[in-house]
Amino acid sequence: MKLHWSPRSPFVRKVMVAAHELGLADRITTQRTVAAMLKPARELMPDNPLAKIPTMVLDDGTVLYDSAVIVEYLDSMAGGGRLIPREGPARWTELRRHALANGFLDLLILWRNERAKGQPMTELIEAFQLKTDAVLKSLEAEAGAIAAAPLGLAQITIAIAGDYMDFRFPEIGWRARCPKLSAWQSGFAERPSMRATPIVDA
Amino acid sequence: MKLHWSPRSPFVRKVMVAAHELGLADRITTQRTVAAMLKPARELMPDNPLAKIPTMVLDDGTVLYDSAVIVEYLDSMAGGGRLIPREGPARWTELRRHALANGFLDLLILWRNERAKGQPMTELIEAFQLKTDAVLKSLEAEAGAIAAAPLGLAQITIAIAGDYMDFRFPEIGWRARCPKLSAWQSGFAERPSMRATPIVDA
Repeated sequence: MKLHWSPRSPFVRKVMVAAHELGLADRITTQRTVAAMLKPARELMPDNPLAKIPTMVLDDGTVLYDSAVIVEYLDSMAGGGRLIPREGPARWTELRRHALANGFLDLLILWRNERAKGQPMTELIEAFQLKTDAVLKSLEAEAGAIAAAPLGLAQITIAIAGDYMDFRFPEIGWRARCPKLSAWQSGFAERPSMRATPIVDA
Repeated sequence: MKLHWSPRSPFVRKVMVAAHELGLADRITTQRTVAAMLKPARELMPDNPLAKIPTMVLDDGTVLYDSAVIVEYLDSMAGGGRLIPREGPARWTELRRHALANGFLDLLILWRNERAKGQPMTELIEAFQLKTDAVLKSLEAEAGAIAAAPLGLAQITIAIAGDYMDFRFPEIGWRARCPKLSAWQSGFAERPSMRATPIVDA
């Protein structure tokens, strides 16, 4: 399998952490792809017209995206139900928590793009801050349940969002604001799957 | 079930079309929620800190989002496997096509927000145009397979994206550029589920 990959993308990292956890990382060949909002990766567009990473190309040519679809595919390769419960309330909780963390990553990336502009739009930055406050409050309120849940797509994505804030938004100060979530995340970040996939500006 | 709802959101429409197709529309109570990128819906944030619609609240208080998660939940209520194949290649094709159409809707909404600003950023608009060209080319190339597929999440989302372009981006001229996709979409748009859920500026 070929994965359009970058060491800077938290969505790519989600796929790679899942692959490590499932014992499938050595089945993936990574191809460095630079996909920025202002500079679409033209070489990626034949596989994914949205020019987004991660994008996976299977050996038979089947293309998979986005990151959640790729993780579910890897999970099914490993027998299914390992990172995403197959059914019932556990499945909906996993997918809802993933949607929260994933939507938060989307927000942080839009925020980063906005502040990179010469004249960031004040109302937009304020909206990002307001939503970030609500997300952090919600995650901290749920930190006990998140920590107690089985390893899965939601934990992986929440842990990656924590590292991503450390990397790109230290000024948010999330660890001081979310002590329970931070304590859990610091432990999770020591997993070999997380240590094998650091986000770096390379 | 309560659905945070708006008649302007293509993502909300996806949920409502699915509910109609599954015979579940009368189980949903809609609550009008205005969620704009610059004006987060504060009343929505206790249920969804990202302040995004659709957000579903089940009778037992369980909260579900985003739209794909809600559709999968409705599908499971109706027996499962009706709008999203349960497994195998058909599932990956359905989810990949959905991710394409859904990511395209995300792009169109960002584009709309950008052009609403006093000084839209030229490079960003050009990136949106480039990706739109690639998406339309890809969908038109796949139009025969899309039309031949069973009713599902992908067809619903692609058809909604077509109507959304007619509504917000007539200048794209997608019907002239995608005659096969347009012919299929015009037929799909006559389904009672689509006719019952028009997008309107109300």
